[in-house]
Amino acid sequence: MSSTALYTVPTAGPDDVAALKALDGHSASDILAVIGKTEGNGCVNDFSRTLSAAVWHPLLEDSAITVFSGGAEGVISPHVNIFVRDERQYSGHPRGLVTAVGRTRVIGPEEIGRPAQVDAVHETVVALLTELGVGPDDVHLVLIKCPLLSSDAIAGVHRRGLRPVTTDTYESMSRSRAASALGIAMALKECDRDRALLALEGRDDVWSARASASSGAELDDCHILVVAESDAAANPLRAAHTAMRDALDIQALTEVFDRIAAEGGTVRQIFAKAEADPSGAIRGYRHTMLTDSDVNATRHARAAVGGLIAALHGNGAVYVSGGAEHQGPSGGGSVTVIYDVPATANATGEASR
Amino acid sequence: MSSTALYTVPTAGPDDVAALKALDGHSASDILAVIGKTEGNGCVNDFSRTLSAAVWHPLLEDSAITVFSGGAEGVISPHVNIFVRDERQYSGHPRGLVTAVGRTRVIGPEEIGRPAQVDAVHETVVALLTELGVGPDDVHLVLIKCPLLSSDAIAGVHRRGLRPVTTDTYESMSRSRAASALGIAMALKECDRDRALLALEGRDDVWSARASASSGAELDDCHILVVAESDAAANPLRAAHTAMRDALDIQALTEVFDRIAAEGGTVRQIFAKAEADPSGAIRGYRHTMLTDSDVNATRHARAAVGGLIAALHGNGAVYVSGGAEHQGPSGGGSVTVIYDVPATANATGEASR
Amino acid sequence: MSSTALYTVPTAGPDDVAALKALDGHSASDILAVIGKTEGNGCVNDFSRTLSAAVWHPLLEDSAITVFSGGAEGVISPHVNIFVRDERQYSGHPRGLVTAVGRTRVIGPEEIGRPAQVDAVHETVVALLTELGVGPDDVHLVLIKCPLLSSDAIAGVHRRGLRPVTTDTYESMSRSRAASALGIAMALKECDRDRALLALEGRDDVWSARASASSGAELDDCHILVVAESDAAANPLRAAHTAMRDALDIQALTEVFDRIAAEGGTVRQIFAKAEADPSGAIRGYRHTMLTDSDVNATRHARAAVGGLIAALHGNGAVYVSGGAEHQGPSGGGSVTVIYDVPATANATGEASR
Amino acid sequence: MSSTALYTVPTAGPDDVAALKALDGHSASDILAVIGKTEGNGCVNDFSRTLSAAVWHPLLEDSAITVFSGGAEGVISPHVNIFVRDERQYSGHPRGLVTAVGRTRVIGPEEIGRPAQVDAVHETVVALLTELGVGPDDVHLVLIKCPLLSSDAIAGVHRRGLRPVTTDTYESMSRSRAASALGIAMALKECDRDRALLALEGRDDVWSARASASSGAELDDCHILVVAESDAAANPLRAAHTAMRDALDIQALTEVFDRIAAEGGTVRQIFAKAEADPSGAIRGYRHTMLTDSDVNATRHARAAVGGLIAALHGNGAVYVSGGAEHQGPSGGGSVTVIYDVPATANATGEASR
Repeated sequence: MSSTALYTVPTAGPDDVAALKALDGHSASDILAVIGKTEGNGCVNDFSRTLSAAVWHPLLEDSAITVFSGGAEGVISPHVNIFVRDERQYSGHPRGLVTAVGRTRVIGPEEIGRPAQVDAVHETVVALLTELGVGPDDVHLVLIKCPLLSSDAIAGVHRRGLRPVTTDTYESMSRSRAASALGIAMALKECDRDRALLALEGRDDVWSARASASSGAELDDCHILVVAESDAAANPLRAAHTAMRDALDIQALTEVFDRIAAEGGTVRQIFAKAEADPSGAIRGYRHTMLTDSDVNATRHARAAVGGLIAALHGNGAVYVSGGAEHQGPSGGGSVTVIYDVPATANATGEASR
Repeated sequence: MSSTALYTVPTAGPDDVAALKALDGHSASDILAVIGKTEGNGCVNDFSRTLSAAVWHPLLEDSAITVFSGGAEGVISPHVNIFVRDERQYSGHPRGLVTAVGRTRVIGPEEIGRPAQVDAVHETVVALLTELGVGPDDVHLVLIKCPLLSSDAIAGVHRRGLRPVTTDTYESMSRSRAASALGIAMALKECDRDRALLALEGRDDVWSARASASSGAELDDCHILVVAESDAAANPLRAAHTAMRDALDIQALTEVFDRIAAEGGTVRQIFAKAEADPSGAIRGYRHTMLTDSDVNATRHARAAVGGLIAALHGNGAVYVSGGAEHQGPSGGGSVTVIYDVPATANATGEASR
Repeated sequence: MSSTALYTVPTAGPDDVAALKALDGHSASDILAVIGKTEGNGCVNDFSRTLSAAVWHPLLEDSAITVFSGGAEGVISPHVNIFVRDERQYSGHPRGLVTAVGRTRVIGPEEIGRPAQVDAVHETVVALLTELGVGPDDVHLVLIKCPLLSSDAIAGVHRRGLRPVTTDTYESMSRSRAASALGIAMALKECDRDRALLALEGRDDVWSARASASSGAELDDCHILVVAESDAAANPLRAAHTAMRDALDIQALTEVFDRIAAEGGTVRQIFAKAEADPSGAIRGYRHTMLTDSDVNATRHARAAVGGLIAALHGNGAVYVSGGAEHQGPSGGGSVTVIYDVPATANATGEASR
Repeated sequence: MSSTALYTVPTAGPDDVAALKALDGHSASDILAVIGKTEGNGCVNDFSRTLSAAVWHPLLEDSAITVFSGGAEGVISPHVNIFVRDERQYSGHPRGLVTAVGRTRVIGPEEIGRPAQVDAVHETVVALLTELGVGPDDVHLVLIKCPLLSSDAIAGVHRRGLRPVTTDTYESMSRSRAASALGIAMALKECDRDRALLALEGRDDVWSARASASSGAELDDCHILVVAESDAAANPLRAAHTAMRDALDIQALTEVFDRIAAEGGTVRQIFAKAEADPSGAIRGYRHTMLTDSDVNATRHARAAVGGLIAALHGNGAVYVSGGAEHQGPSGGGSVTVIYDVPATANATGEASR
């Protein structure tokens, strides 16, 4: 069982691991996943992610995963979200949040953005659901970090007489996210393989409101976190998800927050994806994110949606990640909110081990 | 009398003047001011502003002014706000919005960011209030475009044996905005000259929630727009202002919007200033806008606050400008909302000339 | 006859047309082409080019062309190269430089980067050679400005049910340059149409050391300048061309300069193309231009090659343009040097009209 | 004795330590200094430097230093220069290169860019010269890495009621380099303390052609490398230094290279500083490095001077660092060339331990 607790802790820099001291009754060996926002550009040459991975991995169990999403634009505040194994039974909580983590096999550079990646992700997510003993409908978030194509990797593919899915390193981030998201959508029964592969070629429109993918040069397999609710757990954490239809969709957000408030819940963290609307306009108004050759579109999207979500949340330590291919509707993005709820009336509120 | 109408029109590019065709019953000669968001970087080498000024000025009366604020980051959509002289008397409107525009004398490069600039702005704003026949309390917005220091200008100052206020071209934008904002604050009786000059030196904290200053290389004097309400006008436009305390201050915005809704008003446009909190943190959470050497802080601030304000407004054609020195509290920014109200009960709603 | 003189004049900004005053005995109506380096980012949203075009075109004959190449990185100094019609017969000069300029038809957005663009460029260059009365071997430079795909243009293509050659606006610059360069190569008999089209698809390696293409959002046809030597002219200008094999190829440059010096010539201007080696390495050493998500590869390439060429020339007012697809060997670039030579011994050195 | 050998090895990324395998007969414990070019932006938020420091330090002796200079713009190829202790006596070499390394005490944030930093650097360099047993005239390079002011550090200084030398994080890099360079100039007897402090305030012009300073967020003391020639050593390495007068000064470089060639030497590595001429022009031609708000001036300067030096050297693995305050004349930069020479005639060319 992997009943889970969540700590969201600001960081002083990508190499700051002081968050470990914030764990309350847990130790580093309980950590399942460190999901962080780091302050690089979030693009190909973002070494803040690599630095965070380099300082965190020696502290963690081999089975733990890390996902560092670069880009703390605007008001977004660099931080880590630490998911820990929490076996305590919280009375008054008939259910709770559960978490499983895993890795795919290494994805070869020539496989990135292609069906082989879709399949590898699908397979691993299915296995994680089985491990958790939950069905697709119980899942609120599948968060994944997947590899990209560096210049070196592209040259290597060419040397072996193969063709990479793209020769543009920044574009490879998008292709990798897309394949990962479609693998997730398959695993969550939101589409079958045929539709996923058509979508990969741009010939169908498939998306999951529970997929959150980011890519980076710091790994060559995919790191995957699955977050679900389960009756087999007993803790105060719950999750809800929605999709922003576009980057202005404050209604989708307030609707979820209102729902949580109605349950008496308190928002703990928001995991959101954002992207520059590929049509070049939002609600008919032209945006310039795709024609700005100085600042990449994913940076713009994170800054704008981060500005909105942080204002609603009341602080900047929110997880907003850029590039939402098949993660929410086109131009919008997936949103998962983790919150806690009070114990039910006849409960003591004390945890027992 | 300069009773005013306002058109907010998206642009297809900085050289797009098609907005002229959107004027309803007005011609180019009625234009008092063109206040636009253009899609450059909003910093020193933003030629989108210069381009807009170059294409618009030949179409306007000599007395008209333009203010092009660069930077349409994130969801902000490039557009122009055209203030036109509108002498129609709208029945059922016992008051209305009035506008006056003017220019200071040329501000010498050695005067930029110094008391001479404060005084020149103060003098011109006072003259514009007199022209409008309104008092400081009637004013909701003083919007100004002021010069910056280019490398050439800095070298020129040095050649004349003088010292510019700074030798950093990007920093000069901030110094110029600060001096302009303090001149406005004086004119609106929010401080006296002594406090303004202390604030200019960083030795006092003075700000105006109605000042909006941006700087650019495309002019050497200051262009000034004053927007006020007056009983001498009779049109459906009204204005309200507030200050965001920080970049997350959604409460300040919703409070104004609620007030406007309570009057039965409809928001037409929002003029907001934004800045990276100079303390390096917002509500105790570290931000990275001031340590990002790839993207200037004003770009980050516009993107984030633009993301929030556009979501609240429902479209991206909002005027969010970066660099809020003395324009709202430190880390926050001034906000002016222009809205229209329905005619009072016994009115016909028809305008008469 | 279009015997030509050349003026290279620094500019104080993209809107500086003071170079007109530098024309010696010529007027604006004699101008055939204004070929400038402007100080924008040289990429999609480079409004410095549009601004220069906007201020220069009203001063020129309708038949004149402008090519503004954005990007004055590093030591490159913004300037204009003005080619004027110079009908004076310089005694002691049995030959001289001749110039012709023209435009293709409008290239539809769906044609950009495709055979239709290759053909349109080919056709216009052939016509210009005929107009000049020179053969392909007499030509030292064909310089072209060609359109790119903006977000709007891409959306328009999609609306008409067509597919653009790419949906990435920055990538479209490269595709447009490639098609233009291949049209030039065909016109100069460096390849036939079959090879050109294979090269366009990446299935052949064709390049011209005399092609110089840049793309921009400020036009929808292609502006073309042809520079050749001709016995029908009598002026002191001459041209030579070479190709840099890579961005470090100082030998190719010094070889040309030595050749010119041996003729007693004085270098007047250098027109060079530069690119980030698409293999990701130069002479086996990794470069990072293609993995830098903060600064586009064309900016890096201009800065580096500009640093070399300007040092050799002794000043920064050199024309170095980024993106050398089919303009010189892969990773290198085309180079044309314009120089003047002294009159032959029995000549007076005076021009006669 | 610290007779030295030098290895220059390309890196595949900031976290690549494979260069250790390139050491020929030396081990990690022989390493005195790792001086690398990493591929970040070379500015405040350059985490490539921090990453390199994080992976290298655990492999090195405590006494070893690292200097990672960010910014591999244009053709500059990321690499490390490893100075190792090499006690072998190379016959036929009556002298050789010697190296000493050390650290200053921690420089408090309020001391950065101020006399305290000048003095601390001065003191440590003097001690290193004593340790080497060389005089100032024997020194060819003093290379230093010094701290900068982050937003956090600035806030900390303010909290303690003090004023930092600047509140601009990027500007703090320049102030720190300046203080370090002046400490070096004092230690090399190129100026006395009075002149150094006047220069720190901008009231005198002092520079050293042997100083190379870079700043970073990854350390809080100064790491210092001194490279000198000594009769007490016997190895094939030699050094020469010069100053580029400006970024186009190819003559200064070829003069040194010619001198080395005349000795029969082979260039091994070049350590150069570069900067955007603070006057805004080079040889009377305007540059735009100081008005580019998208790309910082140090990046431009490295790219341009790197393009020149790499072309002269024949590959991009050259150490070109940006920001040359007091390191060479204004607008130029210091240059040190390390080369090897053949053994003298009666020598065997074999090293003996």
